[in-house]
Amino acid sequence: MPSNDTKLIPADKLRAFAVGVFEKVGCPKEHAEITADVLIESNLRGVDTHGVFLCDNYCKRLEQGLFTPKPNVTFDKRRAALGTVDGDRGLGQPPTWLAMQKAIEMAKECGLGAVSVRNSNHFGAAAPYAIHAAERGCIGMLWSHGESDVIPFGGRKKFFGTAPICFAAPAGFDTPMYCADMATSQVAFGKIRAAGHAGKEIPPDWAVDADGNVLTKPASDDAIIKDYSAVPMGGAKGYGIAVMIEATCALLTGMPYGPHIIRKFDDWQNVSAMGHYVQAIDVEAFLPLTDFRRRIDEMFKELKAIPPAPGYKEVMIPGEPELRTKAQRLETGCPIAPETSNLLTALGKRMGVPFPS
Amino acid sequence: MPSNDTKLIPADKLRAFAVGVFEKVGCPKEHAEITADVLIESNLRGVDTHGVFLCDNYCKRLEQGLFTPKPNVTFDKRRAALGTVDGDRGLGQPPTWLAMQKAIEMAKECGLGAVSVRNSNHFGAAAPYAIHAAERGCIGMLWSHGESDVIPFGGRKKFFGTAPICFAAPAGFDTPMYCADMATSQVAFGKIRAAGHAGKEIPPDWAVDADGNVLTKPASDDAIIKDYSAVPMGGAKGYGIAVMIEATCALLTGMPYGPHIIRKFDDWQNVSAMGHYVQAIDVEAFLPLTDFRRRIDEMFKELKAIPPAPGYKEVMIPGEPELRTKAQRLETGCPIAPETSNLLTALGKRMGVPFPS
Repeated sequence: MPSNDTKLIPADKLRAFAVGVFEKVGCPKEHAEITADVLIESNLRGVDTHGVFLCDNYCKRLEQGLFTPKPNVTFDKRRAALGTVDGDRGLGQPPTWLAMQKAIEMAKECGLGAVSVRNSNHFGAAAPYAIHAAERGCIGMLWSHGESDVIPFGGRKKFFGTAPICFAAPAGFDTPMYCADMATSQVAFGKIRAAGHAGKEIPPDWAVDADGNVLTKPASDDAIIKDYSAVPMGGAKGYGIAVMIEATCALLTGMPYGPHIIRKFDDWQNVSAMGHYVQAIDVEAFLPLTDFRRRIDEMFKELKAIPPAPGYKEVMIPGEPELRTKAQRLETGCPIAPETSNLLTALGKRMGVPFPS
Repeated sequence: MPSNDTKLIPADKLRAFAVGVFEKVGCPKEHAEITADVLIESNLRGVDTHGVFLCDNYCKRLEQGLFTPKPNVTFDKRRAALGTVDGDRGLGQPPTWLAMQKAIEMAKECGLGAVSVRNSNHFGAAAPYAIHAAERGCIGMLWSHGESDVIPFGGRKKFFGTAPICFAAPAGFDTPMYCADMATSQVAFGKIRAAGHAGKEIPPDWAVDADGNVLTKPASDDAIIKDYSAVPMGGAKGYGIAVMIEATCALLTGMPYGPHIIRKFDDWQNVSAMGHYVQAIDVEAFLPLTDFRRRIDEMFKELKAIPPAPGYKEVMIPGEPELRTKAQRLETGCPIAPETSNLLTALGKRMGVPFPS
């Protein structure tokens, strides 16, 4: 019976479910585990849009051969500090995880390391990869292009994705780990849709309509909403960053760009392929890690001491809200919305892997 | 007699003036030339806020020993792909230029190269360095922290600078070179001041007043304006990027951060020191440069074909407006505002290097 309630489900049960369904559709155990880890970490961090609910889309694409279930993921070291991972058009998480491992390895040797990823797919949220580097004493960064949703500055047709860009640095001794994971659009497309459904007005720098006009009252009808476009963050600035992301993720790797990227929720005919860029800088190439951690502590304590602006409770370190949510959800379990629960219960039934309750 | 007119002055005359005054205050010829090149390139590109007018501030700081006139600029290669340049607290342009040379050199060897710069100062605009890398077949990127002008997201006191971040990539055969050079605040502080002076309203995401309240009607009085703060681009997003910039420019290098950076126009007691981060990725580590240039052509042609949004004439490639301005100013000369002309005429008189007219 479909549920109408949000349930609290422990992260380890969600993880076991995700591993189970990915193995059922033929993924190797290691790939199933890496992908489950990245997805469930997003639920723990409160980023449910990038969490366990994606199992449904990923599994359907794997079943239909639109993602390769058993990909031959390979690393090609091109130079001392640089290489390429080929994801063989499977799930995006395993090649991206490998890319970050290799970037860290080269950073420990050469000071920094970079890996481009090709023939990959949606990698989930960027934060878990960057945090992995930060936990190993590196400044981690990565970005990805994405399905076309955002106008170029001054244009009336969508071209680039809401392309995520993410940075993380080793934590202080007393302050939270820094991690900034953001879309390069002013807001995620989902926020525009949500405002439309709720009948709410939006600020004039969020979206444009099908003719490129500034939009403040989005429609509630999804058929109209689908022709809206998001606006780059800071106007020309987010557009400028989007070109860099596309140059490194698509042009260096030979992947399709912007409007040519297959839409994973809409296109059930074509095999998709995406590119990412992953980099690590070894802090110890500059100074002892403990000194860096002391310095970041000092700066973060000064930031935290700034009085909040009207309407805010405190100044947060980028990544601090997510760490707080994670601490809480490790205690209480992750809230799973009824539509996600129903979607995954149906998936689980088909797979013979019951969705936890 | 002070001028009230904007004059058009050829770039080579501006350059000769800048070289002349820097040599007069004791800078080595090479440093004078590099600094003049970076400044005058900004005038040519239409970024007059980072152009020849800075000669006055730089020369005063050099005369008073607040910038070292004959610095010992050194490069310390730490690892195969990573090093540090020490600017010995002189002008910021020579060490940043050296850093980009070394980053390119390491990129040609290792695939990518990164250099942190310490004991530097204001480096002018970021674009000329990134473009230098792009002209040598690299994706160039650099960023710098800056004097405290921007609130952290949710805070009521300024902390980070309007910290520039810049990317450039090799040009297509038929399309302009990509270069995105941006402040990480929603707008530059000067725009807020200009609106105040002109009695104009500003959008609610540009600035806050001394109490952290959203500001839409800035005062015309500079004594009030100085307590305003700029707002990070995209709110939490620009703040997240600012922390990465500070981590790489100040924490890795041991430079002061945010509110501890000496204000070059206001503080005439203290020797200043700043840090930057400079990186190059060799395109040929991934694919032949001609293939990359073909790919970027193809993408840019698609972007240029997008119909403009209402109120815009065309979709521009990031960096295209500046290239057009440069082509025009190479023909006509650079417009020099009367206040700049008067400032530099006075400087020139004191130095015995007449400002051109």
